[in-house]
Amino acid sequence: MTQAVPLVEIWRGDFLESAHRGHAVVCDGSGAIVHAWGDPGAVVLPRSSAKMIQALPLITSGAADAAGLTPEHLALACASHNGAAIHTDRVTDWLRTLELDDDALRCGPQMPDNREAREALIRGHGSPCQMHNNCSGKHTGFLTLTSHLGAGPEYIDPDHPVQEAALEAFERVTDETSPGFGIDGCSAPNFACSLRGMARAMAHFAAAPAGSPEARLHEAMRLHPDLVAGEGRACTELMRAMDGKVAIKTGAEGFFTAILPEQKLGVALKITDGTTRASECVMAAILVKLGVLEPDHPATLKRMNAPILNRRKVQTGWIRPAAGWI
Amino acid sequence: MTQAVPLVEIWRGDFLESAHRGHAVVCDGSGAIVHAWGDPGAVVLPRSSAKMIQALPLITSGAADAAGLTPEHLALACASHNGAAIHTDRVTDWLRTLELDDDALRCGPQMPDNREAREALIRGHGSPCQMHNNCSGKHTGFLTLTSHLGAGPEYIDPDHPVQEAALEAFERVTDETSPGFGIDGCSAPNFACSLRGMARAMAHFAAAPAGSPEARLHEAMRLHPDLVAGEGRACTELMRAMDGKVAIKTGAEGFFTAILPEQKLGVALKITDGTTRASECVMAAILVKLGVLEPDHPATLKRMNAPILNRRKVQTGWIRPAAGWI
Repeated sequence: MTQAVPLVEIWRGDFLESAHRGHAVVCDGSGAIVHAWGDPGAVVLPRSSAKMIQALPLITSGAADAAGLTPEHLALACASHNGAAIHTDRVTDWLRTLELDDDALRCGPQMPDNREAREALIRGHGSPCQMHNNCSGKHTGFLTLTSHLGAGPEYIDPDHPVQEAALEAFERVTDETSPGFGIDGCSAPNFACSLRGMARAMAHFAAAPAGSPEARLHEAMRLHPDLVAGEGRACTELMRAMDGKVAIKTGAEGFFTAILPEQKLGVALKITDGTTRASECVMAAILVKLGVLEPDHPATLKRMNAPILNRRKVQTGWIRPAAGWI
Repeated sequence: MTQAVPLVEIWRGDFLESAHRGHAVVCDGSGAIVHAWGDPGAVVLPRSSAKMIQALPLITSGAADAAGLTPEHLALACASHNGAAIHTDRVTDWLRTLELDDDALRCGPQMPDNREAREALIRGHGSPCQMHNNCSGKHTGFLTLTSHLGAGPEYIDPDHPVQEAALEAFERVTDETSPGFGIDGCSAPNFACSLRGMARAMAHFAAAPAGSPEARLHEAMRLHPDLVAGEGRACTELMRAMDGKVAIKTGAEGFFTAILPEQKLGVALKITDGTTRASECVMAAILVKLGVLEPDHPATLKRMNAPILNRRKVQTGWIRPAAGWI
């Protein structure tokens, strides 16, 4: 097995203070590997980078169209949002169309990352709800499918029809038999695959014909980058920087994926130590290498060759791709 | 050069999701290596784990005694505190005895980690001050020495007498010539050394005779674990779990040090990727190995073999020392 390779360096003055290793794979529409760093066979949990796959049954079942879902809903179903009003208002409205409310969600409450929403909660001595959970769009998608199927309320159980459909979609697009699952931060099963399988799945999305369920999902993400993450976040800023031509999706523990429809390419990467600063740097570097992201765009520079500032805004160092791999 | 070795594993269900590598060294009072994992010669920036060393000139100069500093002041000088009232009230009083206020600090403002203090600031629509900075005790110590020396106000400049004294102390206790420095998050110079040099420095503290400047500092830390970090934090909880027999100190980017006076041992460790969850796990494991921390104490279990809970408080995995190294 190939070792994880050095991908990111954290410098402080003249000293290499920290470093991050990982694996990354780029596949083409046929599923063949175009680029690989580290071990394409590494077994991974793609975490929230798999949300586009988990949302597939929502469309393939006919539930999305029966419920009249718009691209905004589909973008939210694929989102790890920061709990801003633009997200929670839409999730609340969506739940209402299902004649449901926050109590139907099974993702658990989460303090919003969005500063305004978080500070409003604190000032009102309030507690976060499940709709504030970054996964509440995905879960409302699960509930839409649950309702369409007339299935029971515990839609996060691995043997619930919604999760059985998610597994079927996952194995189909990764072209692998999943070796199992972990329970995600939002309590849904998160299926395992090889990193190559995840890159293949993203390439499958990229190569899918217009109007297909896969294309509708990545089009929705590219159309609504603000709904997929939120202001200041990597997914939102980098998708905007690429003028909506590429869909990208972060995941916990250093995961990141990209769907490049024009090139029919898919990207999947995992930072072995699970660090987001590194997964964002590597994703930016790969998108630059693939010619879809400008190296000098502010959203790029914020993650790649980014200055590290201290509490007096003095630059103390920088984060950059490790030498040699890209 | 020896590679960093696997030290910590993050499991989710049956899957090894992430892993952390690093270096760790235990030295005895003579400076000899007792245990080493990875590369003892790795060049490191010890960050806040060096605060005890940076505080040495405060005592050796006579400034601490001239200013009537108590063990509480000395504990704060070595602290990375969470900005709770117990910290900021004492720093404010200490600054007042110097006829100074928040404006004299050069650490920059930082939103407190302490929840009550942070939420009080948000509810009052206030901004954090420099006294909220986790390093404000160290900086008030620097100001005490500055005042004693009659030196200028820019005490963080590398050629200021306070930093020249800090470098002299650093090279003396590490028994190395520092290859340079980085600028810390609090704007003070942070001197580099080998990891072995840092473990040697901690062992030097551990072996120092009662009443010496080194002993006064680690005694102050052991006497006031709540002032060194804060409620819920690793330094505070683990020092309490060891009944004040051992002083430990975290640092940014995965650093951690320990001073064991009874055993005359010093510990220094660096997680290569800079992750705190891993440095805390490894420090707990080493303290258990050295016989000074109970393996089944709640403060130990919280960092070593700790369950990872999701947003519904369901256990999804655990963090534990990697197999084989300890």
